[in-house]
Amino acid sequence: MKGAVLHGPRDVRFEEREAPKIEKPTDAVIRISATCVCGSDLWPYRGIQPVDQPTPMGHEYCGIVEEVGSAVKSVRPGQFVIGSFFASDKTCPNCTFGYPSSCEHREFVGTAQAPILRVPLADGTLVATPGLPSEDLIPSLLAVSDVMGTGWFAADAANVKPGATVAVVGDGAVGLLGILSAKQMGAERIIAMSRHEKRQKIAREFGATDIVTERGEEGVERIKELTKGIGADSVLECVGTQESMLQAINSVRKGGAVSYVGVPHGVELDGEMLFYAHVHLHGGPAPVRRFLPELIRRVWDGKINPGKVFDLKLPLDQVAEGYRAMDERRAIKALLLP
Amino acid sequence: MKGAVLHGPRDVRFEEREAPKIEKPTDAVIRISATCVCGSDLWPYRGIQPVDQPTPMGHEYCGIVEEVGSAVKSVRPGQFVIGSFFASDKTCPNCTFGYPSSCEHREFVGTAQAPILRVPLADGTLVATPGLPSEDLIPSLLAVSDVMGTGWFAADAANVKPGATVAVVGDGAVGLLGILSAKQMGAERIIAMSRHEKRQKIAREFGATDIVTERGEEGVERIKELTKGIGADSVLECVGTQESMLQAINSVRKGGAVSYVGVPHGVELDGEMLFYAHVHLHGGPAPVRRFLPELIRRVWDGKINPGKVFDLKLPLDQVAEGYRAMDERRAIKALLLP
Repeated sequence: MKGAVLHGPRDVRFEEREAPKIEKPTDAVIRISATCVCGSDLWPYRGIQPVDQPTPMGHEYCGIVEEVGSAVKSVRPGQFVIGSFFASDKTCPNCTFGYPSSCEHREFVGTAQAPILRVPLADGTLVATPGLPSEDLIPSLLAVSDVMGTGWFAADAANVKPGATVAVVGDGAVGLLGILSAKQMGAERIIAMSRHEKRQKIAREFGATDIVTERGEEGVERIKELTKGIGADSVLECVGTQESMLQAINSVRKGGAVSYVGVPHGVELDGEMLFYAHVHLHGGPAPVRRFLPELIRRVWDGKINPGKVFDLKLPLDQVAEGYRAMDERRAIKALLLP
Repeated sequence: MKGAVLHGPRDVRFEEREAPKIEKPTDAVIRISATCVCGSDLWPYRGIQPVDQPTPMGHEYCGIVEEVGSAVKSVRPGQFVIGSFFASDKTCPNCTFGYPSSCEHREFVGTAQAPILRVPLADGTLVATPGLPSEDLIPSLLAVSDVMGTGWFAADAANVKPGATVAVVGDGAVGLLGILSAKQMGAERIIAMSRHEKRQKIAREFGATDIVTERGEEGVERIKELTKGIGADSVLECVGTQESMLQAINSVRKGGAVSYVGVPHGVELDGEMLFYAHVHLHGGPAPVRRFLPELIRRVWDGKINPGKVFDLKLPLDQVAEGYRAMDERRAIKALLLP
């Protein structure tokens, strides 16, 4: 089997990897229908997060179950399934409280840019669709596996309520789907921070009512102007840098909420600044599994179309071009078809 | 008029100050029935927060209205009133959203260790009791002005729910009243972190079910042991140091909430640590005014007795001894009677 392997900065290769098989009775093996490149894959791709050995890549997946271990009860071969990037057991206290991405037995599913994938803890991790999806639904179902679930968590963690004014920092796939999520949750005004025309267009299609192209302090000023000097009720921080985090915190009103869903890189928050900001903060690895049934239903019923973020479609063997296009911001998100 | 003035580290004097009078039509002048020394007064008293000129002290107060400005409508001379340490207008967006301590027109009320006090924005700031209180109610009504309101906010901001397991870091008056608040909100298990016998006793009277004497990592271990390895649902951070903040964050379960209500001194939070902690954070200057009507009612009806935290009662002219006793941790909180 051939799959994507990262060898070092900007060096992704499509090469021979061992074919996955059932290792534990709780595993499932699935044949990938579609996978993709994530914004977070760019941290190691760009060398910001060092890679010390050839590393298989990919953590977004959907496909058909080929085989299950002897203990697996909730999915069976032939079903179309979606899972999250953290396998989770669905029974530990953290899962019970709604945080499967902090499951006590979580395992990162990190080899999905390949035709075949082993998924641990299949009963807890995988959710089957009501039937086999038509081909046009697959990009949206794949999006649910991570970026849509993460955008949804961003809106949920930022406490988006009907009628709210929401700002979204970051115009990557997660930011764009944060806009879609806020719209679904009834936000009245959604301010997208973006300077990319193509992304602005999708932002508007997803529900953005205002576009702010300024960044940093100027971006904050602009949001204050748009909100009568008060700030937004909810701000979704979908980047993960110090600048974007401070921009988010400074854009929210007193008592409002900021969520953060991308692994922070070099972020340090001053306690006194947080104190006087009077902000609610919540974030972390998105507990996507919690939202899967609901989001699959919305895709299945045609209520949301998160697959729109895939603006580049490639055969899996051209995975390196997918990374390049996203690195150079030529593409928002690259869909890969085995 | 004589009142408390801080001249430098550990140098509080009871000396002649200008008597306050109505300066703006929105002011009230009140005759203080009782005031006190706050844990936060100890930061400048200890020289940790520098004082560059003689500074009148005190921000907790209750008393009888003597005079009101021409624009004041909601309180009148002769009424017994309580206010918070931040005067607030009750009409700006921040007040409307429940954050009067971030009122757009807020003014710090910082000269309350005196017999007479000017309170700005009297209509927004002061709440009258149903009648003149008996003398034994006065300590509890005074507590509502800050420490009780702050302890209540700590529990509220940490999202304390009926049946919850709550941990409280800090056994000062605010921490103890955080325990009382959590108990009022229906917490089932309340873990007080304290190594002081006298404070442990009050903690138990207020509703603590467990006492943890360990600090830092050992304290975290102990809380994990008491919660089957999961952590508390809610942790109230009532100290304001880096150690106490990390202790709080590490003691909470995934998806749980940490509140912080004391001005942080030297606190820096690492973004990646917060991310994987999956914690909800909220805090800031307690919006005490939001809670005043409710808390006054509970005191008036005899449901809570927060005045119990005053374990030292002094005439106002002995204010310096009040600071000394609290600095040396001989007293939890010093009540001062003009």
